[in-house]
Amino acid sequence: MASGARIILVVEYDGTDYHGSQYQANAPTVQAEIEKALKMLTGEKTRIKMASRTDAGVHARGQVVAFDTAAALSPHEFVDGLNHFLPDDIAVKEAHRAAADFDVRRMATSREYRYYIFNSPARSPLRQKHACRVEGELNLENMNCACRALIGRHDFASFVASEETARAKNTVRDVFKAEAARDGEMIVFTMAASSFLPHQVRNTVGALIRVGQGRMTVEEFYDLVADGTPGLAGPTAPAAGLCLERVDYPVTFEGDAL
Amino acid sequence: MASGARIILVVEYDGTDYHGSQYQANAPTVQAEIEKALKMLTGEKTRIKMASRTDAGVHARGQVVAFDTAAALSPHEFVDGLNHFLPDDIAVKEAHRAAADFDVRRMATSREYRYYIFNSPARSPLRQKHACRVEGELNLENMNCACRALIGRHDFASFVASEETARAKNTVRDVFKAEAARDGEMIVFTMAASSFLPHQVRNTVGALIRVGQGRMTVEEFYDLVADGTPGLAGPTAPAAGLCLERVDYPVTFEGDAL
Repeated sequence: MASGARIILVVEYDGTDYHGSQYQANAPTVQAEIEKALKMLTGEKTRIKMASRTDAGVHARGQVVAFDTAAALSPHEFVDGLNHFLPDDIAVKEAHRAAADFDVRRMATSREYRYYIFNSPARSPLRQKHACRVEGELNLENMNCACRALIGRHDFASFVASEETARAKNTVRDVFKAEAARDGEMIVFTMAASSFLPHQVRNTVGALIRVGQGRMTVEEFYDLVADGTPGLAGPTAPAAGLCLERVDYPVTFEGDAL
Repeated sequence: MASGARIILVVEYDGTDYHGSQYQANAPTVQAEIEKALKMLTGEKTRIKMASRTDAGVHARGQVVAFDTAAALSPHEFVDGLNHFLPDDIAVKEAHRAAADFDVRRMATSREYRYYIFNSPARSPLRQKHACRVEGELNLENMNCACRALIGRHDFASFVASEETARAKNTVRDVFKAEAARDGEMIVFTMAASSFLPHQVRNTVGALIRVGQGRMTVEEFYDLVADGTPGLAGPTAPAAGLCLERVDYPVTFEGDAL
């Protein structure tokens, strides 16, 4: 490989023991672990960029990470080498070469998240770290009716805390997919959008659970989307149930895959 | 409830942080945690019995536990009360009253275990604690052909270490079910038997993986079952992939359920 290459990685992690994806001084983060592994592998002090920020305790099956390197390693060697140095709860699934101007955040056209609702009267030790439990019955049909209110271009200010809307400036987003499906005791909510506002998926899930419980009507959910008052939706569903499933780009990275 | 009742519990646990199901001095075990929670709830020093012993790191979705108590609590109160005192990685799913002579081990007619093989070139942080990873391709059809050798009454000595066969005395068991099914990258092996010898499922999986990899023929697997030389099968597959799914009894416990 020519020196000075931009590499992108597809990364899976269990976020349970991390204070989120982004670097923080004095707290374990996914970014810090990947940068540490890169230092071990290449000897370079590298700054990585991630496609989608995930909060403390949130997981990822398909986070996308980009960095520049002068190391003469193939994508395959990056996968094996980084997995050797990374802790058990973070793994590189794929590595690809990208164009020098590839921007992992701005060029992403869609982020897809899944939220796992474990709908059971009893808590489940085998599921607790990757799902949020809701005890009572949930009306899936009503939840899916409410989901339709999310599809398309909307101002999602009501799904964001007021201090965040000020920071975000523009709270309009394009939602491509929003649907809930039941698999036994597990309800999986899938939401894909151009990008997400802070806590948007978890606040959406909080409101959808209220719809499922009959504490909010589908009509009230539609009003909530239209309202636009910051912080109106919620409550914020717990982090453990959330997983960044995939990030899509207008280009494919077929070459140089794992 | 009249005092002096025998209670049975259906228990789920993540075995990752335990040195197995059975009590050991100076090591965390599932038994010790349940007995500690019972002491907190009832004030009684109680000895529990479990339907099937699980090794260090092995999980259970349907372990069955029995104990005697003089506490005037309903089954429902046992579920809620124990779950309050138990750690997050152990939970009581159901509680039932049983006859005073109910023997949780000897009266069990079938134990069903599942073994999760994550068949992928890359390791998975989200699956690592509940599956064993096998990198290369596995021939599921051959594995299922081999499984048929296990069904019925056989002497399973070759699936047990030689020091264990001496202890077990009788190594004949009735196997009711043995089959492997693929769900995406996960291969789930299900095995149900009258009871199991120590490490029997994990040694069976070790041999089946060799069949799937083409390192052992289906015929050689049949010979292995017929051979009866202690310790011939294996290698012993890792504990993390194994889960005690359910234990069956000739009676049902419909009344007094959760």
